[in-house]
Amino acid sequence: MSVKAKALYTFQSENKEEINIQENEELVIFDENSVDGWFQGENSRGERGLFPASYVEIIRNRSNSNVTDSSISPPSSLGKVSYFPSLPNTSPNLQHPYYDDEDDDDWDDWDDRSTVVEDSDHTRNPGANGHAHQSPMSNNPNVHYRAKPHMERQDSVSSSRKGSMVGSWNRFSSFVRSGVEAFVLGDVPMMAKIAESYTIDMGLLGPRWKESPQPFCCSIEDPTKQTKFKGIKTYISYRVTPSHTGRPVYRRYKHFDWLYNRLLHKFTVISVPHLPEKQATGRFEEDFIEKRKRRLILWMNHMTSHPVLSQYEGFEHFLMCADDKQWKLGKRRAEKDEMVGAHFMLTLQIPNEHQDLQDVEERIDTFKSFAKKMDDSVMQLTHVASELVRKHLGGFRKEFQRLGNAFQSISQAFMLDPPHCSDALNNAISHTGRTYENIGEMFAEQPKYDLFHMLDKLSLYQGLLANFPDIIHLQKGAFAKVKESQRMSDEGKMDQDESDGIRKRCRTVGFALQAEMSHFHQQREVDFKHMMQAYLTEQIAFYQRVVQQLERTLRMYDGL
Amino acid sequence: MSVKAKALYTFQSENKEEINIQENEELVIFDENSVDGWFQGENSRGERGLFPASYVEIIRNRSNSNVTDSSISPPSSLGKVSYFPSLPNTSPNLQHPYYDDEDDDDWDDWDDRSTVVEDSDHTRNPGANGHAHQSPMSNNPNVHYRAKPHMERQDSVSSSRKGSMVGSWNRFSSFVRSGVEAFVLGDVPMMAKIAESYTIDMGLLGPRWKESPQPFCCSIEDPTKQTKFKGIKTYISYRVTPSHTGRPVYRRYKHFDWLYNRLLHKFTVISVPHLPEKQATGRFEEDFIEKRKRRLILWMNHMTSHPVLSQYEGFEHFLMCADDKQWKLGKRRAEKDEMVGAHFMLTLQIPNEHQDLQDVEERIDTFKSFAKKMDDSVMQLTHVASELVRKHLGGFRKEFQRLGNAFQSISQAFMLDPPHCSDALNNAISHTGRTYENIGEMFAEQPKYDLFHMLDKLSLYQGLLANFPDIIHLQKGAFAKVKESQRMSDEGKMDQDESDGIRKRCRTVGFALQAEMSHFHQQREVDFKHMMQAYLTEQIAFYQRVVQQLERTLRMYDGL
Repeated sequence: MSVKAKALYTFQSENKEEINIQENEELVIFDENSVDGWFQGENSRGERGLFPASYVEIIRNRSNSNVTDSSISPPSSLGKVSYFPSLPNTSPNLQHPYYDDEDDDDWDDWDDRSTVVEDSDHTRNPGANGHAHQSPMSNNPNVHYRAKPHMERQDSVSSSRKGSMVGSWNRFSSFVRSGVEAFVLGDVPMMAKIAESYTIDMGLLGPRWKESPQPFCCSIEDPTKQTKFKGIKTYISYRVTPSHTGRPVYRRYKHFDWLYNRLLHKFTVISVPHLPEKQATGRFEEDFIEKRKRRLILWMNHMTSHPVLSQYEGFEHFLMCADDKQWKLGKRRAEKDEMVGAHFMLTLQIPNEHQDLQDVEERIDTFKSFAKKMDDSVMQLTHVASELVRKHLGGFRKEFQRLGNAFQSISQAFMLDPPHCSDALNNAISHTGRTYENIGEMFAEQPKYDLFHMLDKLSLYQGLLANFPDIIHLQKGAFAKVKESQRMSDEGKMDQDESDGIRKRCRTVGFALQAEMSHFHQQREVDFKHMMQAYLTEQIAFYQRVVQQLERTLRMYDGL
Repeated sequence: MSVKAKALYTFQSENKEEINIQENEELVIFDENSVDGWFQGENSRGERGLFPASYVEIIRNRSNSNVTDSSISPPSSLGKVSYFPSLPNTSPNLQHPYYDDEDDDDWDDWDDRSTVVEDSDHTRNPGANGHAHQSPMSNNPNVHYRAKPHMERQDSVSSSRKGSMVGSWNRFSSFVRSGVEAFVLGDVPMMAKIAESYTIDMGLLGPRWKESPQPFCCSIEDPTKQTKFKGIKTYISYRVTPSHTGRPVYRRYKHFDWLYNRLLHKFTVISVPHLPEKQATGRFEEDFIEKRKRRLILWMNHMTSHPVLSQYEGFEHFLMCADDKQWKLGKRRAEKDEMVGAHFMLTLQIPNEHQDLQDVEERIDTFKSFAKKMDDSVMQLTHVASELVRKHLGGFRKEFQRLGNAFQSISQAFMLDPPHCSDALNNAISHTGRTYENIGEMFAEQPKYDLFHMLDKLSLYQGLLANFPDIIHLQKGAFAKVKESQRMSDEGKMDQDESDGIRKRCRTVGFALQAEMSHFHQQREVDFKHMMQAYLTEQIAFYQRVVQQLERTLRMYDGL
């Protein structure tokens, strides 16, 4: 049964079975039971196809929607540091609200559970080991709320995409929520023993993450369809092999998703790119699996090349644990990790070099403009490349095939007056026809070799860039606190010691952000150089193949 | 002031400023004063642009059209051979009705006179040295008629195109009208002295025109705009240089048109391709001049390579006469040539070989099927190639330019965070952007080197093929007369001698047609081989240039 819906976010199709939807656009959904996170429906321009269920809100009649839209009880204040000054569940910036079931046995359902089904399940209790920003301190029984339907629906993709669409929410909400405010104000107590430590040192271009002592990479191969419950449940398993152990482990999308959420919880000032989209079923399944694999590989490369993320214990667990029981233990341990959010800041070792806060603020503003422009141009290139894929599969192929057909038709005509028909010429013309049909097919095949890879990399960078507005926001919040405390100190309302402490901790935030900016630039240079080289190399190979085909064909006319 | 009109024939646009029109389609014409034979208007699909004035009929209200549609007095019978059994002026098959002015001084106006202006000039008297099918015997003062407006409008293009659209007219009208009936029936008196002689001999594949003893070719160069009457009249003059004299003469389109009409009059069983379209003015003028020049060259090549046409005295006059006075004398002489139409058949020398008429008829039927299929496939290829031109100028260029812009935009973003921006990489990416913009331009330029030439040749062949239904029709008429006379002879109603004479003269028609078919095949093989080779060669060069551009660009990333 079809239902009406509204697009919450703009979604740009990347495959021919998907359609574009615009923020606020009215949609029709043919079946409100989504399949693997995708709805089939029609947009306001009459285009039909798939779009992510998490990007839309089903429009119910008023009597029903009242239940979900209202009755949010404001959380109680926890003293100076309020963890929910703006309700995280109503903010589009909320990082991946995520409801794990109490029981790990239900784990297997994730891949197949549609988001709409989740929506209707209002009885589920948020919190515990599932929700980053409520844990550990917000395990307050007074805090009960029901998220708006569309916020509950967020998946890893949409939540991080939304990062770049920050709009009307309270200015410091993410700053406060992330725990960075608490850290800067000195409200996060120093722990007796901190096992983890991440060092920032000074490079030629400023602060940078100290390289991991044991760099490694990790392959993702062989996506294999597995079934459970006598074939009722199906899922894809990937062989994941880290280079430093060489031992493969097998992981599903939900494992990646779990890891992703751990990373989001813990690494406040680090840009963790979103995971590739979930898979759609049906006849395009193979293409989707292939695309998801390629993008998981890029995602994994980003993880392993990041000096901080690559050293995370939970990541190690993900990469190495091959035993079911051990997996559950390690999973629980990671979820109980206290060094997340505000506490993560305590693990950072910064250099002693003096940095003028004004300078840092300027540097960050410059980066902010850069990131905005890069986000725009990556979006532009994504759009152009997607269009080009469509043209390759459609227009280009069609034109060359038509030309091929027309040549064939000429050759057929020439065969109709036998005494005067020159077989060799007719063969050559007919062969020319087939050559152009081939070239049409080559055009249709080519995106596999170039544009798809470009789009994969651009998608990773969209994910990375989408996080920076929030991360920069944290830094801005810290700066504001320094200025405020300085003023209070000047007015004698605060001890100079306390104000100095705030300034010092703000330096830590600044160093961390600069280190992350620096890492981004470094990776960006490598990645875009490779992306451009790979694209040009494949393009050259493609046009060379076209030339070869045509040369072979031209030779057929020799000596006629 | 815009007026309504109806498309008489289907016209397929070949330039972006032209639009397609369908037979019987309703049109709006913005200004009924056509410019150089072109109307500007809108078709029923709302497309606006140019189309040939000769392809449409302006819809007047009834009171006006009555004047032109009726009052045609049937011509008097001239004995057994009726020259106008179906009024030639109402038949779409009529070959280029053509009204020269009595006075040669008006000659200069042709290029600029719009067809609609001609329409309104009902006082002009057809006949004299202008109209082929009335001359010489129809110079009968009793024969007066007014052609239908749209028949008067025919130009060389439309009249010959119409050849393939033969529809409802009397079965043997062209047979009768052409004089072939008169010739077959022995009603064309043998002349005392025939200066001309064209020989058909037997080749391996059957009858063929004997090669010209003095083969030559002819260049057409340097179209130059000339003005007359202090700049009021402008026209284009071409330098025409035949290889056997090496002396250039200067000719205008109207001279070509005059020659074309002489050829149509004279060479009944020979396919004379139509001239290229007249020129449109305005900002596309240069492209049109260039295109017309290319097509005049192809037309000229066909003339010079034809063993019969190339030896025609009027052609010689056209190629050699450089003196104004001599020109007029030669022009009048050619127009008074009596060996036209039926009489031309008297100039043919055929071999003695016996040919079974049944076999000849089958051979011609085979050719007919072939010519029909070739006409279709030439039309198909023309359509595809025209579309491809449009895509090159539009879609292809746009896609590559967009890609180029997107790369440039990426490079601009990368320059925004100076300490972290790698100039070499940014330069390389920016250069890649410019390379793709270039490639877009190369796509837009490419039709000049390949598709345009293909379209030129296809247009020549459309003209050649369009004539064959009529020519074959002549042969069919002759066959019918043979059968009829045989039956009459068997029934004792005709002398065996007379019947034998008819059979013998029918052989001449059959030999001539076979020679023309053979010549067509021979030229077709050469032309299509060259066309395909030229196309493939230019395509290879094009894609090689693309490869070179990309390779140069790729090298910019080396050592980054």
